[in-house]
Order: sequence, then structure tokens, then C-alpha cells
Amino acid sequence: MIQRGRLITLEGGEGVGKSSNVAFVTAWLEARGLEVVSTREPGGTPRAEAIRALLLDPAPAEPLSVDAELLLMFAARAQHLAEKILPALARGAWVVCDRFTDATYAYQGGGRGLDAERIAILERFVQKGMTPDLTLLLDMPVEAASRRVSSRLDDLGGERDRFEREQRGFFTAVRDGYLTRAAAEPERFALIDAAQSLSAVQAQLEITLDQRTALWR
Amino acid sequence: MIQRGRLITLEGGEGVGKSSNVAFVTAWLEARGLEVVSTREPGGTPRAEAIRALLLDPAPAEPLSVDAELLLMFAARAQHLAEKILPALARGAWVVCDRFTDATYAYQGGGRGLDAERIAILERFVQKGMTPDLTLLLDMPVEAASRRVSSRLDDLGGERDRFEREQRGFFTAVRDGYLTRAAAEPERFALIDAAQSLSAVQAQLEITLDQRTALWR
Repeated sequence: MIQRGRLITLEGGEGVGKSSNVAFVTAWLEARGLEVVSTREPGGTPRAEAIRALLLDPAPAEPLSVDAELLLMFAARAQHLAEKILPALARGAWVVCDRFTDATYAYQGGGRGLDAERIAILERFVQKGMTPDLTLLLDMPVEAASRRVSSRLDDLGGERDRFEREQRGFFTAVRDGYLTRAAAEPERFALIDAAQSLSAVQAQLEITLDQRTALWR
Repeated sequence: MIQRGRLITLEGGEGVGKSSNVAFVTAWLEARGLEVVSTREPGGTPRAEAIRALLLDPAPAEPLSVDAELLLMFAARAQHLAEKILPALARGAWVVCDRFTDATYAYQGGGRGLDAERIAILERFVQKGMTPDLTLLLDMPVEAASRRVSSRLDDLGGERDRFEREQRGFFTAVRDGYLTRAAAEPERFALIDAAQSLSAVQAQLEITLDQRTALWR
């Protein structure tokens, strides 16, 4: 009988360093002999990535209604779960995911002020009680995160997508949304101070992973 | 105070003649001095049409999970309602729509065997109690409808989309799904015999429209 794998999610606003830390967590688990699937939301499979493209499209052809945005987010998640996450967990692989349902509560709930109960309806519909085993919340003040995003965009000459164009108040509400969820579920969440240097962040991640995953390995 | 417009939907399987009859119903209402918005589902607005393209894509990159299909269908519907249908009804226009939620029950419920209660969760989420004022169900035997689709595709040299490629048993289940819904809501549904000649179908539509809309005009 194969032991089910574990789902570890990384959460946080723009500029907190999720991508490099997803790679770090993945490498840390692989170094312990585990099969690891590294993925992201919204997206993670060809069809879910096509839905992601609709969600992030900044073209102002027409506003995207809040209900449509939420349903698209969960459509991508349903596809990602069915085609990638659940099969991986079932064969014993661990999954490291850049964002998951907590992001929906933080962005659509905290950021856009959507009623959390409406998000919960779709969460129950899609996940049927399934939640991450561990959620690493990379937290830092909005001002500092925003400076990191600006310098990255300047370096890359990149364009801001629909979410990155939101205003400061939006990102403060997103951060508050994340912190509220972390406070409500301390067993699942680990709060990581993302304002530190990358090496200090990764030292904190190592300690956290070691403590939290010891019983699962 | 402007009187709210009415929503009339046309439903039925492939090959029953929905497109020509949507045009006929629209013209009939316009001839009575009403502003009419003629539209279709899934789709009807730029963003909802982009979701439609994901739903109909026959490319087998990966199977589309049943939950993802249902959520995409209702995402397109939420967008269509918010950006087109509800504003039109609010300004007093009548809306004629080629397919609506009954199609979801018939195709995803009847056709794919998805639990109707799961569809109902999303219907309540998106429509918040709103339903069409009149639903014209164009009904005909599956064999005859299938011959019409084949001859149309041969004429146009067209390719079948993801739904049109389904098997005979699927379309029989879709038809049964529609007929069950019509029987359960006779006040809202009018059953139209689509196996007749187009002129006979339209004569039946005229009588039905005259009777059913008399109190609303």
C-alpha cells in the first residue's frame, strides 16, 4: 500500500519571492528521496493554463464579473486537481504548489471584498473537504514587496497583468486576508518572514520543513 | 418606471434548428415594437466567448474534468448575465437566448450523468433564483436530428466540436434530460415539434409566442 503524498502550498502577495522558494522547497524534498511535483495556480495543466490566460488577460475588452472570475479560478483548480495534483498524491508523490485556495480567499475575498461564504461554496464543490497538508505563507510589508515587483518589472521590461495593476489598498487587503487565514489555522499554516534576505528566508524554510514534515516522511 | 424585459430561451439538441428559430423569434418580437437582444450560450460577450472556445476545443491535450467543464459553463453564464442579459432586461429589452441553464442539465446532467444537485449548486450561485420567463424546447427524435447535423457538416465541410463528437446514447440522454425538465415545469416550457417542416415549426412558434407573451406586452 503506497502512502499518500503530501500537498505543500506557498502563499503570499506579489514580490514576496514565491518562485525561488517553490524551487527551494522542491529541491529540499527531492534531496530527501521524495518524488516531487512542482506546480502553480491558477494553471498547472494545459487546460488550466488556458483558463489562467483568460484570468490574467489585462485587455479591457470588458470587465470580468466577480462571479465569473471566481468560477474560472475554481474551474482551473478542478482541472489541476483532477489531472495533476490528485493523481500525484495517489501515487505517493509530494506536490509543491505556488498558490492555492488561500490565494482565492486573500485576493477575491480580502482584495475584492467578495463574501467568503461564496468562496466557501465553490471550495466545497471542487475540493470536497481536501486541503493542503502544509501552507507556507511568505509575508512581508506591502511597501517593500511593491518595490521588489517594480524593480523586477523594470529589469525585465515586463508588463503588469490584471492583478499586478491593482492599487496599494488592494494589496494591503490581500495581505490582511492571508494573515487572518493563517491565524485561524495555525496547524496548517507556517508564517515565514519574507522581508529577510533570501538565505535567511531559506534557513527559516528548512527549519519549518524539518519540523512540520518529520512525521510524514 | 420601465417594465423589466423578458428572457426567452430556445433549447434542444444538435440539428433541431435552433439558430433559424432564434432569428424567427427575434424578428417576431421586433415586429411588435420591442427592443430585442439576440444572443447565445455558452458565450454572448467577448470574455464569455473566450470561455466557450475552451469548452468546445476538441484538441485532446488532456481530458476536461467534469467539474471543470461545469464551472467553465457557469463562469461563461455569470459573465453573460452580468455584462449582457441583466443590463438588457433592466432597460426593458427582451432577450432571446440560444441555450441556457436547461442545456447544462440536459448535457452535463443527462448526457454525462452528472448529479443534478451539483448543477443546482452552481445555478443558485450564479442565477440567485433568476430563470427564463419562457423556454421553447425544440424537440425531435435523435436519429432525424443526427441526419440533419451530418448533412450540414458535409455541406460546410465543417469539423465536429467536442460535443458534436459524442455518441448516439449521449444524445438520447440529452433529449430525455430536456423532456424531463419540460415535464417538471410546464408553466415555463413550451414543447415545439421540430420534426415538422420549418414553416410548420414557425407556425407553432407564432401561436405559442402569441399565447405565452400576451400578458407581458
